[in-house]
Amino acid sequence: MLQEYLDNVRAAGPLVHNITNYVTANDCANLLLAIGASPIMADDGEEAEEITTLCAALNINIGTLNARTIPAMFAAGKKAVHLRHPVVLDPVGAGASTLRTETARSLMEEVRFTVLRGNSSEIKMLALGSGGTQGVDASLADAVTEETLAEAVSFTADFARRCEAVVAITGAIDLVSDGERTFVIRNGHPLMSRITGTGCMLSALTAAFLAANPLAPLEATAAAVCAMGICGEQGVARMGAQDGNASLRSYLIDAAFHLTGETLDREARYEVR
Amino acid sequence: MLQEYLDNVRAAGPLVHNITNYVTANDCANLLLAIGASPIMADDGEEAEEITTLCAALNINIGTLNARTIPAMFAAGKKAVHLRHPVVLDPVGAGASTLRTETARSLMEEVRFTVLRGNSSEIKMLALGSGGTQGVDASLADAVTEETLAEAVSFTADFARRCEAVVAITGAIDLVSDGERTFVIRNGHPLMSRITGTGCMLSALTAAFLAANPLAPLEATAAAVCAMGICGEQGVARMGAQDGNASLRSYLIDAAFHLTGETLDREARYEVR
Amino acid sequence: MLQEYLDNVRAAGPLVHNITNYVTANDCANLLLAIGASPIMADDGEEAEEITTLCAALNINIGTLNARTIPAMFAAGKKAVHLRHPVVLDPVGAGASTLRTETARSLMEEVRFTVLRGNSSEIKMLALGSGGTQGVDASLADAVTEETLAEAVSFTADFARRCEAVVAITGAIDLVSDGERTFVIRNGHPLMSRITGTGCMLSALTAAFLAANPLAPLEATAAAVCAMGICGEQGVARMGAQDGNASLRSYLIDAAFHLTGETLDREARYEVR
Repeated sequence: MLQEYLDNVRAAGPLVHNITNYVTANDCANLLLAIGASPIMADDGEEAEEITTLCAALNINIGTLNARTIPAMFAAGKKAVHLRHPVVLDPVGAGASTLRTETARSLMEEVRFTVLRGNSSEIKMLALGSGGTQGVDASLADAVTEETLAEAVSFTADFARRCEAVVAITGAIDLVSDGERTFVIRNGHPLMSRITGTGCMLSALTAAFLAANPLAPLEATAAAVCAMGICGEQGVARMGAQDGNASLRSYLIDAAFHLTGETLDREARYEVR
Repeated sequence: MLQEYLDNVRAAGPLVHNITNYVTANDCANLLLAIGASPIMADDGEEAEEITTLCAALNINIGTLNARTIPAMFAAGKKAVHLRHPVVLDPVGAGASTLRTETARSLMEEVRFTVLRGNSSEIKMLALGSGGTQGVDASLADAVTEETLAEAVSFTADFARRCEAVVAITGAIDLVSDGERTFVIRNGHPLMSRITGTGCMLSALTAAFLAANPLAPLEATAAAVCAMGICGEQGVARMGAQDGNASLRSYLIDAAFHLTGETLDREARYEVR
Repeated sequence: MLQEYLDNVRAAGPLVHNITNYVTANDCANLLLAIGASPIMADDGEEAEEITTLCAALNINIGTLNARTIPAMFAAGKKAVHLRHPVVLDPVGAGASTLRTETARSLMEEVRFTVLRGNSSEIKMLALGSGGTQGVDASLADAVTEETLAEAVSFTADFARRCEAVVAITGAIDLVSDGERTFVIRNGHPLMSRITGTGCMLSALTAAFLAANPLAPLEATAAAVCAMGICGEQGVARMGAQDGNASLRSYLIDAAFHLTGETLDREARYEVR
């Protein structure tokens, strides 16, 4: 069932505008190329609107945000929404600094995102306020486990409804919800967390899937999350005795290069709640 | 015939100043080290002149240009010309935004570049004006093919004469012209376009070849273009069934590490028109 | 004897704040993940203090410093010292520009670093003044060789005493001194200098070792230097006929991923003077 979403990416070859951190920008670009999309990285306010106009989707990642790039995020985000382009927010480190938390929250107020994708702590921070100082519901454990799954599904769906976006919380178990339906995805491998930027790469990939599947943001996001997880699994399966996280990084991108819609359908492990 | 130009790079080990984008800076640095040169990346206006003074060549790449780095490009460019250092311009995305197009054009007005290296769309934008809005000659197809080759050679040579620089248009067929002679180069492989930054890497490589061969900018540029294409071919030849663009990226740089002048001479496929 | 310092890193999994250059940030992040630590890259003044507060160590690398990131270096550095976090300075290119030299020297005046790690030219610049213009002692050859070793050990120890920090000069022979004892380390391989960022990676690694071994900065730094050298040796040993510096880069990080305390103890080659 997910096959078509990947096939559409390969067929469309969408151009994706990324305002993203310098740590993982190269990997995001190569993953986009691997899946059949094309990356443009451009983070200056003076060109943000023009660049996003050329593209089919926008990916905003606050990983190494700064006073110069934050205005570009707002300008590009508003322009993309105006053009009805899908827009992804990756709130890297929301909660780690006031700057990150406030930037993510302000972006959410001013830009109607198509997808919010983060780890459980980042999404929790956006959904529940500024942490302990505002009475965060600590009963939501940060990690989504089989034990906390029902509660996490409910939390994700609630937040998706509230922000009128698809919300993707990724970790050992991934949740993708539009508020009505929630994909519970069990692809991926723990070693993926030993590569820097797997989250950033997934957000870029999600933007490509959204660009090629504009009418099905929930399914497109779920397909991207499954695809990323499958590439991680295939990368780990390829590892030899001497391979570590650096080789795995290459293998993961290589796997995306070869990933077909058939493989995505066959290997995707998810249920819809 | 091209052998000596690579041998000179290996012998001189030139220091190359790069003002380049953060997406592919690491690959540019490793490719320079692979070929026997040394990279310095420094993009702040306050040190641009000093750094370029230490170096033997300057590579200006506008890939992630911004209000802070643009003045550094002008300062370093003017200083390098004053010192008679070779200077390369890689007008990444010229035409994609006003900021990029105008920055590239202003740089060309104020800095006498030794080499302009871009894809056909970028060079066309610089040569023919700001696209459709100013009556661009649409009969020049963006891609250089066997069918459009004669016209493209003529265009490249004309533009080289006009801007008094070596012009390198790279793609399926690469053209390198100083206005009098044009190298038509058929090295490379289509999969190179699936790696982010092969153009950026080539521009950095070109700067190293120019630094080591200051009296022969046309031949040095042609040698760099052939070398890059051969490394791409060798990288593709090395790919196994599971390898994709990430492994190819490493194989390409590895090939440059091992490339000899003899191999360059034997594998280079070009004609001079 | 060095085993415990690595075991402590694996056990503690320290979070390391890096204000570092965009050229090698990805490799620094992946090396930290390989060794069992976690990286955060954040270089804006507005969040520098908050981020460093969350972390267990700070690594300041001036590789692509600029007017925006320099204040973040000072703010984070002072905060980290106030919190008694270990702080590493990597004075990349000190001596190559006034901006770099002056920034490194001002940082040393305002931040009490735990470790200064650089190549012999960078450390010499910091220790002996601003080069020829201030009568640098030219009898100290930049490279540490067997011939200049006694003098270099004395220089390193003197400088360590003077700046009340551990000083690590890395090259063919590595010296790590706290002013009283000096580790003379003979791990590593010349090919490591053909990978961009091995120095940057070592500085990040050192911060992780310091974070996990706060009471033994000298031994922790020596362990990090030995570990990096061993990973380089293992990476070179793994190279096949077609592998070059790009594959070596991955192999080096992979080796760190697999490095155990036992291997570190067995393969470390050092003497203490």
